[in-house]
Amino acid sequence: MRVHVQNPANETLFPITPEQWAAAVARAPDMADLEVSYADDDAGFAAALPQADALLTWVKEVHTRIAVPRLALPERLKVIFCTSAGVDRLLPLGEWLPPGVALLNNRGTHAAKAGEFGIMALLMLANHLPVFAHDARAGRWAPRFGSVLAGRTVCVVGLGSLGGAVAAWAKQFGMHVIGVRHSAAPHESCHEVVSQADLETVLPRSEFLVIACPLTPQTQGLFDRRRLALLPQGGKVVNIGRGALWDQEAACNLLDAGHLAGCVTDVAVPEPLPQEHRLWRTPGMFVTPHMSADDPGTYNDRSLDIFFENLRALRQGAPLPNRIRPERGY
Amino acid sequence: MRVHVQNPANETLFPITPEQWAAAVARAPDMADLEVSYADDDAGFAAALPQADALLTWVKEVHTRIAVPRLALPERLKVIFCTSAGVDRLLPLGEWLPPGVALLNNRGTHAAKAGEFGIMALLMLANHLPVFAHDARAGRWAPRFGSVLAGRTVCVVGLGSLGGAVAAWAKQFGMHVIGVRHSAAPHESCHEVVSQADLETVLPRSEFLVIACPLTPQTQGLFDRRRLALLPQGGKVVNIGRGALWDQEAACNLLDAGHLAGCVTDVAVPEPLPQEHRLWRTPGMFVTPHMSADDPGTYNDRSLDIFFENLRALRQGAPLPNRIRPERGY
Repeated sequence: MRVHVQNPANETLFPITPEQWAAAVARAPDMADLEVSYADDDAGFAAALPQADALLTWVKEVHTRIAVPRLALPERLKVIFCTSAGVDRLLPLGEWLPPGVALLNNRGTHAAKAGEFGIMALLMLANHLPVFAHDARAGRWAPRFGSVLAGRTVCVVGLGSLGGAVAAWAKQFGMHVIGVRHSAAPHESCHEVVSQADLETVLPRSEFLVIACPLTPQTQGLFDRRRLALLPQGGKVVNIGRGALWDQEAACNLLDAGHLAGCVTDVAVPEPLPQEHRLWRTPGMFVTPHMSADDPGTYNDRSLDIFFENLRALRQGAPLPNRIRPERGY
Repeated sequence: MRVHVQNPANETLFPITPEQWAAAVARAPDMADLEVSYADDDAGFAAALPQADALLTWVKEVHTRIAVPRLALPERLKVIFCTSAGVDRLLPLGEWLPPGVALLNNRGTHAAKAGEFGIMALLMLANHLPVFAHDARAGRWAPRFGSVLAGRTVCVVGLGSLGGAVAAWAKQFGMHVIGVRHSAAPHESCHEVVSQADLETVLPRSEFLVIACPLTPQTQGLFDRRRLALLPQGGKVVNIGRGALWDQEAACNLLDAGHLAGCVTDVAVPEPLPQEHRLWRTPGMFVTPHMSADDPGTYNDRSLDIFFENLRALRQGAPLPNRIRPERGY
């Protein structure tokens, strides 16, 4: 079986390296017979693709090299594995992905890192840190006191690896955790789970909201002004999903109006956020530059382990755990 | 037994109220026979003090009403309980406190709140949040990636209720926790404990430093430039103790020089920090206005519970758990 790794050109922080590959194979000896090639340019891609059974690459590479030009894929290609969790840029899949090719994401890679970012953001909001960051700009020492998380309610929307990891920490800090997902199936870290159709019934009793769902045509703009305003007075929001999941202008308006007390967002529209954008200047809004879930120390190791789990399933004729379902979009 | 509660004048956030007293007595029925009086002015203090067996008040009230004027205390007064943990302003005790009066602090009150602030600050430093707060002032979207806390080393100086609570969370996040305290006695949340005399031997392997010890003549200026520079390149510091425990100018210099990667400090010299102070402007320095350990939702309840524990010990002739030892100063 032949795997082609297509790194982006000039990627310095996250390229998949032969050393990382070797270490992953050492953890998964049944993968020792894989043949692997690497490239980061057009010529390397064109030369390797016809021989590849699996392609391991970036969403942006799939987008520009395959989806946009509607590239004809060779018959032998079975798997395209993306080194990220969000594949929203590639939707709808039906327009470019042949039915015989499985598109996989690396969900699971981000859990530990995103979980820590999420609980950090909840603690920051409980401690008024976004307000203090603004006070610091003016050199203003203005104490406000905060309370511990125990007993307070958080609504986590999306119980994939990101939301699930945040929910686990929130529960450990003694919060009351309400999960929202596609189905209302129970989740070990949530005290209650409701389906997305019932989202509006739980928002009014959620002091904290964590947005951690995938961006799909169904979730785009889910947190519009009306739904954000359903949060109670003093509500606080963390967005570690995608900027297009919420109306960021409405969030700023609700902060300015005093209905929301604080927001921490790791995502924005557009990214990078322009220098003069309102998100940088709205008191109570704390912006981080899309780094919440990516841990350079462990990222590729986790991605490769997950890739190998899927190849193992492929060899066994089992369902591929990380396959994107075209009808759901994640 | 008669208790006098002397609240500060115009205290709106943290005054001890008759309702809080009644609730605390309901939790401690053996205290139902206590007589209690309240005042927030000079006349009320003068009238109540001669009849009081115990005085429950603020450090600043003890300072201005008793320590500075060297007020003669009535024979029957046995206990002065302060509604804070740090009594540095009252040192040395020998200058004003009669040997027959026990000075108590409320240590234990702050543990839950300070522990959450401490782990928040460690997560913020691991995620470069102080740098992002500065980038936001300039509208600069400049991703840097951080790693999870697991496996990284934190040195917690001071294992009282603050430092102990931070150490407990740090351990739960998988960090390697080195504790530093007066003695090298083991601590359940620390993988190693060394005595203060060995502090310098552990700093070079501590990526994170948490300053959580009391301010005494022995600890004043403990973290001078030389000791802060013993931290490894990229070191990160949290100060939840007192501003005078470290050389805050040296910390800024080490941030500017790139030796330290970030600091979160809840304390400063002086407080309130003047508008034009360098601490507000140094990239990588995140200042919060001395609110890390005070939770208005639970503060007085916890303080009263601890006060009653000490009165119970007094009645039983047992040592008072919160008594300040004059020779240590905490």
